[in-house]
Amino acid sequence: MEIKRILVTGRLQEELKHRLDGVIGAELRCLPEDRVTEQDLAWADAYAGFRPVPGFLPEQYRWVHALGAGVDAFIHRKPWSEQTILTRTTGDFGRKIAEYCLGHMLADAQHHEGFSEDQRARRWGPQAAVPLAGQAVAVFGTGTIGQTISLTLRALGVRAYGISWSGTAHEAFDKTVSLREAAVVLDQADWVINTLPLTEQTEALFDERLIALMKPGCAFINVGRGGSLVEPDLLRALDRGQLRKAVLDVLSVEPLPDTSPLWSRPDIKITPHIAAVTDAEEAAQALLDTWNALQQGENLLANRVNIERGY
Amino acid sequence: MEIKRILVTGRLQEELKHRLDGVIGAELRCLPEDRVTEQDLAWADAYAGFRPVPGFLPEQYRWVHALGAGVDAFIHRKPWSEQTILTRTTGDFGRKIAEYCLGHMLADAQHHEGFSEDQRARRWGPQAAVPLAGQAVAVFGTGTIGQTISLTLRALGVRAYGISWSGTAHEAFDKTVSLREAAVVLDQADWVINTLPLTEQTEALFDERLIALMKPGCAFINVGRGGSLVEPDLLRALDRGQLRKAVLDVLSVEPLPDTSPLWSRPDIKITPHIAAVTDAEEAAQALLDTWNALQQGENLLANRVNIERGY
Repeated sequence: MEIKRILVTGRLQEELKHRLDGVIGAELRCLPEDRVTEQDLAWADAYAGFRPVPGFLPEQYRWVHALGAGVDAFIHRKPWSEQTILTRTTGDFGRKIAEYCLGHMLADAQHHEGFSEDQRARRWGPQAAVPLAGQAVAVFGTGTIGQTISLTLRALGVRAYGISWSGTAHEAFDKTVSLREAAVVLDQADWVINTLPLTEQTEALFDERLIALMKPGCAFINVGRGGSLVEPDLLRALDRGQLRKAVLDVLSVEPLPDTSPLWSRPDIKITPHIAAVTDAEEAAQALLDTWNALQQGENLLANRVNIERGY
Repeated sequence: MEIKRILVTGRLQEELKHRLDGVIGAELRCLPEDRVTEQDLAWADAYAGFRPVPGFLPEQYRWVHALGAGVDAFIHRKPWSEQTILTRTTGDFGRKIAEYCLGHMLADAQHHEGFSEDQRARRWGPQAAVPLAGQAVAVFGTGTIGQTISLTLRALGVRAYGISWSGTAHEAFDKTVSLREAAVVLDQADWVINTLPLTEQTEALFDERLIALMKPGCAFINVGRGGSLVEPDLLRALDRGQLRKAVLDVLSVEPLPDTSPLWSRPDIKITPHIAAVTDAEEAAQALLDTWNALQQGENLLANRVNIERGY
C-alpha cells in the first residue's frame, strides 16, 4: 500500500517532524490537535495521533496509526471503516507498566507514606515492611504487558496468575485461567492488576460482582482503561473494606474532574495516565517501521489492530 | 562446645522463648533489655541479643549471638575477648534490602511524591517516569546483601557495579572494582548504595572526598550503617547539588534526635532502620541452627564473625 501524505497530530507532533521529516518516504504535515483544519484532514491519506481530532472520519484514510498503545479513542463505540487499516505503537510499554506496578506495590509494602508522615513529625517509628516475596498477584490480560508484569514480579518471588478470555496457559504466569474461572485465583491474590484494553467486553468489567470475588483486603491497580472500572462500585468496596487500596493510572474521565470524590480518598492513589507514556523515540520508530511494512505489504504488519476484537 | 544457659534479650525475647523453649537443648532465660540483672548476666554461658546490655562483658561468655545482621554494637571500638565466639543472624536480609532499595528508586523515578501533592491539590499533571531500565547503580559491599541487590536490579535492566576492598570479580555484578578504583564506576552511577558493615575501615568512609567522586546529581542510599556516612558532608553535597537525594535507613545516632537538621530536608528520606528487620521466625531458626552447629563443632559455623575484620 502506497501512503504519500501523513497528517501527524498530538503531543509528539513536533518531535516526530524533527525525527521523521526526510527520513520517512512520505510527506508529513505535523500539527497540534487544535490547529488541524478540514483542509489538513482532507489533504492526508493517513492519520497518526493519540486520538481523532474533531472532523476526523476513518473512511477518509487508508491507514490510521495510534501513537499510543490503546486504540479505544478511535474505535470504542465509534464507527470504523472496513477499508481503513488501524495500527498502534507497541513499544516498551510492558516494562514501563511493570515498573509502575512494582513501584506502587513496594511503596505500599514499605509504608512510604507512613514514614513520610513520621519524618514530617520528626518521629522514629519502626515498622517492618511486608515482603513482596511470597505475595500473589492476579493480572487481567495475558498479552505482552501482562506477561512482562508477571515475569518482573515473579523474579521477586511473587506468584503471578494470569486471567484472559480463553485461559490458555502461558509460561510467563504461574497459572492462567479464563475470566469465567477468575474466582479461583482472585481469592488468592493480594494484588489485582488490570491491563485490559477498553472494548465492549471490558467496559465496566470491574463492577461490584467481580470485585466481590477478590480476596478481602486486597489492592487493585488499574493500568488498563478507566472505562473498565465502575468507579462507584470501587468506592463502595473500599468503604466496606472489601478492597484495601486502589492505584488508578486511568480513569473513566481524563483529566479527572476537580469535583471527583476520588481525589480526596486516602485509600486511592491517582496518577495522571503516565504508567506507559509513549516517548518520541519509540513513537517515531513505530511510525517509521509501520509505514515501511505497509509499503511492502499489509500482511507484514505486526501491530495491526483487529477491529472486531478491539485491540 | 557445650552451651547450657542462654540469656536472650531484646525486642524478640518473648517470641524466641515461645518458639525455642523446650526445642533448643539449653536452658533459656528471656528478658527485656531493661530487666536484665547482673545475676542474669552471671548465670548464662551464652548471650543472644541485638546489642549488649549495660554490664555485659564478652569474656563472661563462651558464645555471643547477634540477633541482627550487624555486630558493630558488640565489637566496633569495643574490646572483645579472644575466647568468645561471636555469631550473627544471616537470614533473608539481601532480599529485604533489595526490595527496600528498589522501592525507593522506583518511587523517585515515578514521582510518587509529586503525584501525591498533585492529588491533594486535585491537579492532573502528567509527567513521564524515568525508566530504571538503562540506569546504573554502584553498590558498596559485594557480600550476599550487595549481590542480591545487584541481581534484583539487573533483572530490571539496571547495570550494577560492585565495590569491595579487593575488587575481586563476582558474577552477580556487571563489574566489580576495588575501593581504590571506585571513581571509575562512581561517575557512571545514577544511584550509589552502601551495604557495608561498620568497622574501623568503613567508619566515616562516605565523606566529602568520596562523595565528590560520585556523578553529579546522583542519589545515595544508606542501608549499611549510619556511622559510615559523614552526615554534615552529605548535607553540603546536597546543598551544592553534587547529590540530588539521599535515602537513609541508618543514621549516626538512632533514634535520630528531634533536633537533627536531617528531618526537615525534602531531599532526604528517612526510615527508622527497617530495611532489613529480623523477624521472629528467622531469629529463632538462626539461634537454633547456630546452637546446634556449636554443639557439633565450632568449625561448622557458617555465620561466625571474624572479629579482626569486623563482620
